[in-house]
Amino acid sequence: MAELITIEQNILRKNADVAADNRAEIERRGAFAVGLVSAPGSGKTSLLERTLKALQGRLRAAVIEGDVQTDRDARRIAALDVPVVQIVTNGTCHLEARMVQGALQRLPGDVDVLFIENVGNLVCPASYDLGEHRRVVLTSTPEGDDKPLKYPAMFRTADALIVNKVDLLPYVAYDVEQAKAFALQVRPGLVVFETSCVSGDGIDRWIQWLLDERAIHLRACPTQPASASTT
Amino acid sequence: MAELITIEQNILRKNADVAADNRAEIERRGAFAVGLVSAPGSGKTSLLERTLKALQGRLRAAVIEGDVQTDRDARRIAALDVPVVQIVTNGTCHLEARMVQGALQRLPGDVDVLFIENVGNLVCPASYDLGEHRRVVLTSTPEGDDKPLKYPAMFRTADALIVNKVDLLPYVAYDVEQAKAFALQVRPGLVVFETSCVSGDGIDRWIQWLLDERAIHLRACPTQPASASTT
Repeated sequence: MAELITIEQNILRKNADVAADNRAEIERRGAFAVGLVSAPGSGKTSLLERTLKALQGRLRAAVIEGDVQTDRDARRIAALDVPVVQIVTNGTCHLEARMVQGALQRLPGDVDVLFIENVGNLVCPASYDLGEHRRVVLTSTPEGDDKPLKYPAMFRTADALIVNKVDLLPYVAYDVEQAKAFALQVRPGLVVFETSCVSGDGIDRWIQWLLDERAIHLRACPTQPASASTT
Repeated sequence: MAELITIEQNILRKNADVAADNRAEIERRGAFAVGLVSAPGSGKTSLLERTLKALQGRLRAAVIEGDVQTDRDARRIAALDVPVVQIVTNGTCHLEARMVQGALQRLPGDVDVLFIENVGNLVCPASYDLGEHRRVVLTSTPEGDDKPLKYPAMFRTADALIVNKVDLLPYVAYDVEQAKAFALQVRPGLVVFETSCVSGDGIDRWIQWLLDERAIHLRACPTQPASASTT
């Protein structure tokens, strides 16, 4: 057991080193990176579709798609004419920094915001820094409002929480205030958005947060080259 | 990397040995064990609540609950006066056979059917035999109909698929026939149930399958002591 723990610590240490390299490379390109994590089917790709459409003409976006199998999500993103690299993990339950490192080499250099969509898994991705600047966890109303308590690591390591599928609230037993309270209990200060990718509710506020966080990031990292576009 | 693969193979080999012991112990008690796996929030505990109520007076049931954190699910089961043991994995993303082995020692001996609810995770539990006789994977309609293709291992290792939350079909983009076709592509012969734990739709058929599969199992394992109750 001690042997296993040592190996896990080594893996996470190496991952953190590569994640730091990724972050430096992303900043060298003048980009701002946002990681998206959630359970399977919470709506990460649907949120990305809404987000990319909203950012069109404002920021140059690119996407790294992580999936256990298939390039279905990457094809949805490519349909929006956004540069996308699919990582198929072939059974691995989370993205690791070295996978993102490989994907970065296949993306164009002129990107303002890079989204990294992780494998649908509310447990394992929590431990792996990918080099993103902000991590956003999604949970959707049909999943139940107790997920922050039952899967605390993922909420504890996030900067923002998106409560998605609020259009289904009339049909499911879900207490948004309860979910928020649980999330804030696990991660005080978490920013919360309530969205529907069907109706578009809450998307504007989420987009404004993205733009604001990118601006904060650009001020904090003044050594990078100026971006060609403006927010 | 080769070192890691060897360690993983050793872990899975040891797990398979303990799972075989668990199965023998469960059979010695004359019980039939069913594993439940799904993404977070697909409705495993709600299905269990419906199932335990339907089995009352017919079979003596018990439950092993696996969760990353909290005993919320075990408390829901205990409220039905059913023996339940909670395994809190403390961050581990799946149940392992040795955890179930420990839980078995804390359950009563006179059980006809034992349900083992895994951690909500559509990736990692697929690799770990727990000693169950049948494995049932749930997917719910709000998650989208492409999950069998995107998380194939979990569907490939299952004996039955429950498409849950069919009460939400009018409000979500989900094609049940498409989901079934994807699941059967990954796992030919998979038995499929369409259920709602809100309306009760499909529960009768699922219960009948449980009773039938238990009867098949009892005929196949004649060495075990006769059960005190009848189906």
